Amino acid sequence: MINAIGREIPDTITGFNQVRPYAGPFALMPEGRATGPKLSVNKPRSEKLVASIEQAIEAAGLKDGMTISFHHHFRNGDYILNMVVEAIARKGIKGLTLAPSSLNDVNDAIIPYIEQGVITAIETSGARGKLGKLITAGKLAKPAIIRSHGGRARAIECGELHIDVAFIGAPCCDTHGNINGIEGKSACGSLGYAMVDAAYADKVVAITDNLVTAPLYPISIPQTQVDYIVVVDSIGDPKGIASGALRISRDPRELLIAEYAATVIEYSGYFKDGYSLQLGSGGASLAAAKFIKEKMVAQGITGSFGVGGITAPFVEMLEQGLFKAMYDVQDFDIVSIQSLRKNPNHLEMSASFYANPHNRGPIVNNLDVVILSATEVDVDFNVNVITDSNGVIMGASGGHSDTAAGAALAIVVAPLLRGRLPMVRDKVHTVVTPGETVDVIVTERGVAVNPRRQDLVDRLKDAPVPVMNIEDLQKIAYDLAGKPDPIPVGDEVVAVVEYRDGSIIDVIRKPL
Amino acid sequence: MINAIGREIPDTITGFNQVRPYAGPFALMPEGRATGPKLSVNKPRSEKLVASIEQAIEAAGLKDGMTISFHHHFRNGDYILNMVVEAIARKGIKGLTLAPSSLNDVNDAIIPYIEQGVITAIETSGARGKLGKLITAGKLAKPAIIRSHGGRARAIECGELHIDVAFIGAPCCDTHGNINGIEGKSACGSLGYAMVDAAYADKVVAITDNLVTAPLYPISIPQTQVDYIVVVDSIGDPKGIASGALRISRDPRELLIAEYAATVIEYSGYFKDGYSLQLGSGGASLAAAKFIKEKMVAQGITGSFGVGGITAPFVEMLEQGLFKAMYDVQDFDIVSIQSLRKNPNHLEMSASFYANPHNRGPIVNNLDVVILSATEVDVDFNVNVITDSNGVIMGASGGHSDTAAGAALAIVVAPLLRGRLPMVRDKVHTVVTPGETVDVIVTERGVAVNPRRQDLVDRLKDAPVPVMNIEDLQKIAYDLAGKPDPIPVGDEVVAVVEYRDGSIIDVIRKPL
Repeated sequence: MINAIGREIPDTITGFNQVRPYAGPFALMPEGRATGPKLSVNKPRSEKLVASIEQAIEAAGLKDGMTISFHHHFRNGDYILNMVVEAIARKGIKGLTLAPSSLNDVNDAIIPYIEQGVITAIETSGARGKLGKLITAGKLAKPAIIRSHGGRARAIECGELHIDVAFIGAPCCDTHGNINGIEGKSACGSLGYAMVDAAYADKVVAITDNLVTAPLYPISIPQTQVDYIVVVDSIGDPKGIASGALRISRDPRELLIAEYAATVIEYSGYFKDGYSLQLGSGGASLAAAKFIKEKMVAQGITGSFGVGGITAPFVEMLEQGLFKAMYDVQDFDIVSIQSLRKNPNHLEMSASFYANPHNRGPIVNNLDVVILSATEVDVDFNVNVITDSNGVIMGASGGHSDTAAGAALAIVVAPLLRGRLPMVRDKVHTVVTPGETVDVIVTERGVAVNPRRQDLVDRLKDAPVPVMNIEDLQKIAYDLAGKPDPIPVGDEVVAVVEYRDGSIIDVIRKPL
Repeated sequence: MINAIGREIPDTITGFNQVRPYAGPFALMPEGRATGPKLSVNKPRSEKLVASIEQAIEAAGLKDGMTISFHHHFRNGDYILNMVVEAIARKGIKGLTLAPSSLNDVNDAIIPYIEQGVITAIETSGARGKLGKLITAGKLAKPAIIRSHGGRARAIECGELHIDVAFIGAPCCDTHGNINGIEGKSACGSLGYAMVDAAYADKVVAITDNLVTAPLYPISIPQTQVDYIVVVDSIGDPKGIASGALRISRDPRELLIAEYAATVIEYSGYFKDGYSLQLGSGGASLAAAKFIKEKMVAQGITGSFGVGGITAPFVEMLEQGLFKAMYDVQDFDIVSIQSLRKNPNHLEMSASFYANPHNRGPIVNNLDVVILSATEVDVDFNVNVITDSNGVIMGASGGHSDTAAGAALAIVVAPLLRGRLPMVRDKVHTVVTPGETVDVIVTERGVAVNPRRQDLVDRLKDAPVPVMNIEDLQKIAYDLAGKPDPIPVGDEVVAVVEYRDGSIIDVIRKPL
């Protein structure tokens, strides 16, 4: 079948009871109720501490064919996922579905366990490195499922993604099982993704390198959700978990894109007291923070709230009073972790609060402006952030489609050319975010406004940015670098890209 | 049938699919999964604000026969419940089940609507005044269900108490629907009971007299759970919501009971660094705080955490560093509300975190010591806190059975005589808390230790308190006041007392 953005979706896909084609950002009305974990009893003064990950796996009753989850707040410093999968392999358990909130290069270490059949399916926001290649090569028993952060929260809450055992990396955990991410040598800040897993998984195992005597506060994940606690030497590499202060880009092309993006915001009609903003963590996004801040200071504008993936430039704006509060689902650097620890207006939020389309209003619904990056875009404003120029999975859906759907103004920033490849195509290889939710595309050579947004076209007429049709932007790119050939693919579907509402916006086919 | 504490329970009771007799504090293993609200969609920039309670009732789709819930944090200052029931009556909706976390005298105002059939069933922790009399007189279409705070959270989470529409009194609510209880003229402090309703009700209506522009922080109930917001002039009477600083009792009998209770704790073996404590809000309980504090200071003991229903004497201990943190489900006075607002170690908790027996460990499971009051006790250590000497409902189950089951040492304090009535009986009229979870009964004339706790009998041998058998204590009372006659009742069951796990520990029959 063909979905609402013209993508061909197979009628049946292994692992899906029902293939629902994408039909528009708010077309799908959910049915039924939110689900919850199996009910259980914990007797007074029960001991949650077990001696090893192996013992926790046994106690949790992990069996062949079950689903295990992880959170990616430790990013490329994560030790937990590899450690647990290794322990599971040692126990001879097979055929598991791995459902982390995302995967990083560091997780390439589990590839032997995929080859051995310990892991046979993956549901994630993204994958990179060798894991991305492995998925793209069709090495799993069924297509991987790619979900946005909001889509994953939704899938967990409605039971489509049922987690048997969640393994939570806990930078600080008390003897009752209360957890936060802001204390300890492996502090990662917000535990926003893990909060959903902990609330819905049948069994929850906290793995910590920093067990403290209760009471721990603040509490991000409560003792009422934690079954077992395991203490290990180290849950992550601090250098990989959080970077030091990021230097703002000196790449003139990124700076130009950032300046254009800031100017688009300035002239968009949304740049006024009380506006809200989300910034990505990419170079141009971070650079845009600098220009936006200058404009806010110059014009005396105070925003309402920021949302993210939080980085130091955003924290700086919070501390300067340019925003009243930050909602934080994940921290990217040490400054942000420290800010979450000390600033009462820096608020931790769950992935559901952030972006779940099927609750009574995630914070993305209240966003005025978001700046997003892209691997490639097309003349229908569709955005790819998951596959590279060879059709290989090397990115993540993240909050891209969530924020684009929620924000009043979704700006996508991208270089017009990457190497010798035009980034504005006839059709992106993989659609993660549908064009109808993208308002403006900003490149170093020009700014294209989605024709659905005539109001924005009008407002940007006087802006000092080169506004043009998306087709003209594409022509510049093609004139410079030639029209690229489509990536040749076969019929085999190796991954399914779910839209945030659970419909299928695209599939990734195995490149030939 | 006869349950495990010898109470006769009818085989079938209107309103119960399955009558499960109480079989022991941890005998019942729950089946199935936690449930959740109906899934829904809230589009970006949707307006949650509606013009009136009537409009909210319409928008929420309230219909005949549904269940509505309220929280009792405004105590006898509550305007919300009466206001909403009145509005529902005006709309001609009938046959509702009223399921507040508890009822107070102020709610006597809804009696006309019960008589008119607007409300035909009640599920609550307690009732007083005319409402208590009305329930006891069998004026409802089916027996009322009395639940503990933990039992109510459990019933909501597993779906036994399904709430169609929850009405949340919101001392502060932002334009996105985020709520806290610590700001505004009607500040009530913790919203612990309401947190469960908001998380599980199909529709949630916030009613506030203090709407603020987002972002509001801290957040007690998140925007992701709130469907509609209504602004009214006033949600409660501050004088009824929170009292000023309570004076410690000068009643010599209460002081003696308090001193005995403190001494029992001192000699119990639990009185050491890192111990945890819950105090009731009754006179003897509050007075006990004073004696306990003195002993802690004198012996240099620092506790771990306090739990409650929080009152000023407890806050004082927190501020003096005698406890490291407080877990707070409800505030009784202004001092406690202010403490929750300003002290980072004063932690708001939900009723589920407090006491739900069917999660992975409520905080009552980690309690060392609790002091509880009683209307009457019996020689099997069973406790009644719900019916008076005429068999009329005039109290509340509250956290009584929850903390008794959870705490290592559950002390019940009560005067030996109330007026001319002995408070130690052969059988209490109504069992709320089973004797097997009660360790010590403290009266002004003597202290009785549950024979199941030989360890405590041994430890209290050297304590300067008059330890005696419960039968001897009863004899003193009977010698002074005579053996009381049992309250004559008929067959009609007017209320069912659920144990916290959902089994039935007793029924209340209509007095003759």
